[in-house]
Amino acid sequence: MREAYQSDLQHVIDDLVDMAEMAGTALKDATTALLEGDLALAERVIAADPHLDERQSELDAKVVELLARQSPVATDLRLLVAALRMSSSLERMGDLGAHIALIARRAHPALAVPDSHREQIARMAELAGAALVEAAQVIAERDLALGAQVEKEDEELDELMLQISREMSGESGLTNSQVVDMTLLIRFYERLGDHAVSLVRRVGFLVTGDSLDTLSASVDVQDI
Amino acid sequence: MREAYQSDLQHVIDDLVDMAEMAGTALKDATTALLEGDLALAERVIAADPHLDERQSELDAKVVELLARQSPVATDLRLLVAALRMSSSLERMGDLGAHIALIARRAHPALAVPDSHREQIARMAELAGAALVEAAQVIAERDLALGAQVEKEDEELDELMLQISREMSGESGLTNSQVVDMTLLIRFYERLGDHAVSLVRRVGFLVTGDSLDTLSASVDVQDI
Repeated sequence: MREAYQSDLQHVIDDLVDMAEMAGTALKDATTALLEGDLALAERVIAADPHLDERQSELDAKVVELLARQSPVATDLRLLVAALRMSSSLERMGDLGAHIALIARRAHPALAVPDSHREQIARMAELAGAALVEAAQVIAERDLALGAQVEKEDEELDELMLQISREMSGESGLTNSQVVDMTLLIRFYERLGDHAVSLVRRVGFLVTGDSLDTLSASVDVQDI
Repeated sequence: MREAYQSDLQHVIDDLVDMAEMAGTALKDATTALLEGDLALAERVIAADPHLDERQSELDAKVVELLARQSPVATDLRLLVAALRMSSSLERMGDLGAHIALIARRAHPALAVPDSHREQIARMAELAGAALVEAAQVIAERDLALGAQVEKEDEELDELMLQISREMSGESGLTNSQVVDMTLLIRFYERLGDHAVSLVRRVGFLVTGDSLDTLSASVDVQDI
């Protein structure tokens, strides 16, 4: 019984790691679709998003069932509560990937990202992707060493968003339509970084016992 | 003991309603700051946001404590799990209000919203504010009758966002800087509507027993 329970808890962690992989695939494919103008790939990312939503529903149901059946306390309870929050973040990260694909689709056959900003967007995608992979590793191994790296990537994402936003606000030569799409894109990549930080901090909450939201609160208001 | 427990559960609901009021105030004041160019008011909204974050931390801690101490099952367990999700939404709604205030501050002494779109933004703010007030009422009274109204407001918010986005993408006569700010603003108001819908659906989950996320999944991908 006790063993089955421990295995259930491990399944919750495995499910979170799976969800992170699905969100990572969505992000990677959406970025390729965006930068290469690959409409079929954009459609696939958009069509795949409901699977991640389903995974979240299943995971949440599993967590509620464990809470009801096992009445966990202490670390186990904290793990399950954190898992509910992490599954939300991961589902939202999948949405953000789908949003990027939607912009690629809307712009098709043109490219949403003008040549002048192609490299910066590729860099934002790279940072967000790395942050997500590392966050998954932190979840899987409860090793916080990678957390600092994720925070650093998130900071660079914030800086790139501000930089691109400033560049666009000046005499950028972009059309209004390009400015609309780029404003959304840089925000989506930046939000992906925020969610990766939030994931890592929730694992920190499990490992160190700090309060659920003391650290994450400071992420929020700067990310305009 | 049992009575104290019921009173604890009622406190959780009261806290959610309080948080909704705080988020509503932030939204209302941020919109006034935005449309009137009131820098002092924008600063107050930004400075107030950490209070809502604290309320979320306190509420989450209370929920975790109740889960540990009472080992609730069935309806009570569902209420507590839903409360964790709802407190996230409400905290995020407060962030979105603060984001609107940050745009007002950044544009000062100019107005971020050009005259041509003033009425539409005022309407979006009105819809988002009404949706939040109604969602709070649904939480307080577990009366789902207002839910349809919130969904309708959310739909109008989606339509307004798309309409303004299309208008800006054409020959709108707006500067790039105005397009950047407006793109973010319409997205923030539209997201406020999404969160209000999510709150109402979580109460639906409590009342009807439907799964935690079946309904909310469909909100997500359209909100680009």
